[in-house]
Amino acid sequence: MSNFNETLYRYIEYTEKELKNFNNYSHENRPQVKLIDAMNYSLRAGGKRLRPALVYAFCEALGGEMEKAAAPACAIEMLHTFSLIHDDLPAMDNDDFRRGKPSCHKAFGEAMAILAGDALAVLPFEIIADTPHLTADQKVLIISVLANSVGRDGMIGGQVIDLENENSDCVDEDNLRNLYRCKTGQLIAVSCVMGAICADAENETIRAAAEYGLRLGFAFQIIDDILDVTGTTEELGKPAGSDVKSNKNTYVSLFGIEKAQLAADRATSEALEWLDAIPNNEFLVELTENLLKRKN
Amino acid sequence: MSNFNETLYRYIEYTEKELKNFNNYSHENRPQVKLIDAMNYSLRAGGKRLRPALVYAFCEALGGEMEKAAAPACAIEMLHTFSLIHDDLPAMDNDDFRRGKPSCHKAFGEAMAILAGDALAVLPFEIIADTPHLTADQKVLIISVLANSVGRDGMIGGQVIDLENENSDCVDEDNLRNLYRCKTGQLIAVSCVMGAICADAENETIRAAAEYGLRLGFAFQIIDDILDVTGTTEELGKPAGSDVKSNKNTYVSLFGIEKAQLAADRATSEALEWLDAIPNNEFLVELTENLLKRKN
Repeated sequence: MSNFNETLYRYIEYTEKELKNFNNYSHENRPQVKLIDAMNYSLRAGGKRLRPALVYAFCEALGGEMEKAAAPACAIEMLHTFSLIHDDLPAMDNDDFRRGKPSCHKAFGEAMAILAGDALAVLPFEIIADTPHLTADQKVLIISVLANSVGRDGMIGGQVIDLENENSDCVDEDNLRNLYRCKTGQLIAVSCVMGAICADAENETIRAAAEYGLRLGFAFQIIDDILDVTGTTEELGKPAGSDVKSNKNTYVSLFGIEKAQLAADRATSEALEWLDAIPNNEFLVELTENLLKRKN
Repeated sequence: MSNFNETLYRYIEYTEKELKNFNNYSHENRPQVKLIDAMNYSLRAGGKRLRPALVYAFCEALGGEMEKAAAPACAIEMLHTFSLIHDDLPAMDNDDFRRGKPSCHKAFGEAMAILAGDALAVLPFEIIADTPHLTADQKVLIISVLANSVGRDGMIGGQVIDLENENSDCVDEDNLRNLYRCKTGQLIAVSCVMGAICADAENETIRAAAEYGLRLGFAFQIIDDILDVTGTTEELGKPAGSDVKSNKNTYVSLFGIEKAQLAADRATSEALEWLDAIPNNEFLVELTENLLKRKN
């Protein structure tokens, strides 16, 4: 196994283990057991674990121990999962499948899916507040940037822009850039920022982590748009062509695949430039390049 | 105006003002403006502001300044509002009215209501992390107890028990006590606890605040059940008799109004006993007694 794959594997394994720890349930006979099941069903549905890997990678590159980053890494994956569960709901995107499995509301019913998402929106703040591996100042800073990246000007704000765009016929590049920044960029950027905070990095380094993450998130979302057109349902684990089917405005629908790929290439180059400010960045450089070439 | 009414008015006024501050929006032309509108629509729908009043009352009784309690007080009201918005959704209780006005999904559509609830689940942690009036240690402790009281073993767990009970024909007193503790008690208890933490209270005092709050919450929920049967739709601001209509098991349906009233009386007495541990408790005593006699 290459160094890169070894490191990635280590991050993913650690994420799986810690996610299990943070959402276990000792009282198997409690009525809430179905809630925990629904949360775990979606948490364990796999996915790339990109966001936790970024938290660990920034923490380690900047000299922090991995265990310091465990709570923020699991927190960001829970928040990402929360958004996927609610995004799939009938009133939202109405997607029956996610990562090749029935989506949460298909498996557990709509009410339980709403509640499982809700619980995964709140638990992250509890596990960060409770971790013994960070100082109170680190926790407060992490919770502040994390909640901000999820809220009105972040992930949830992005979903709102998405909704509003459905009823709009004047979606332009500015709008899409803002949408991608909110919907995808902020959560990826905050992953990098949290990793840097766990390692007690200087403000300048934290800023570089944020700028890197925003560009990586932008490239990541455009590649997603491209794969939605060029990929197969089997490769993607979700229905291919769903953007076209639901008439969604994307970088691809607005500018075509070629220009979209160029925009992703440019954002990736910029991301790599920001990585120059990070020492021991070999893993991060390879991760960034791999994400540009991914097939799912 | 009596001292009690004056104090209550002061708490409510302060809550309204601070809620506005915490969820304002400077960029009126942003696409997220509709989200802020939906959040504010439900936040401003009134309600008793019981939970913020408890945060302020415990903080002041224990010698803390009111402004220290502002962020936790608004946070708990946001989390309460988040639960009401999601609870009213078609997939949940399917209530078209809340406090005499169309519920959030009726006014803004289901997708926006889901997102407004989501945003109100996350913003509380941001405003607590960002307030300049508390120490990092106070913030971390508050966020820990707050997230816990909302999560799997608290408010959201309570909603799950509620759901599970709909399909069960063996709901007994233990189950209902557990349900009321999760659904109502925890959020009221954590309001008292947060107020005490803002005032830097001793652990023993924080425990008394929690015990008081759990009993008050229990009494509060039983009175709610009673009013659902005896109140009019006009008095309640929501359809009377909705529990019977939706076939919900409550203290009243299980034991009748008289026994339910006795249980509320007893919980109120116990709550008042726990208040003995709190100095300057005149306001809290009167509040506790008033809640037993309320008509909405």
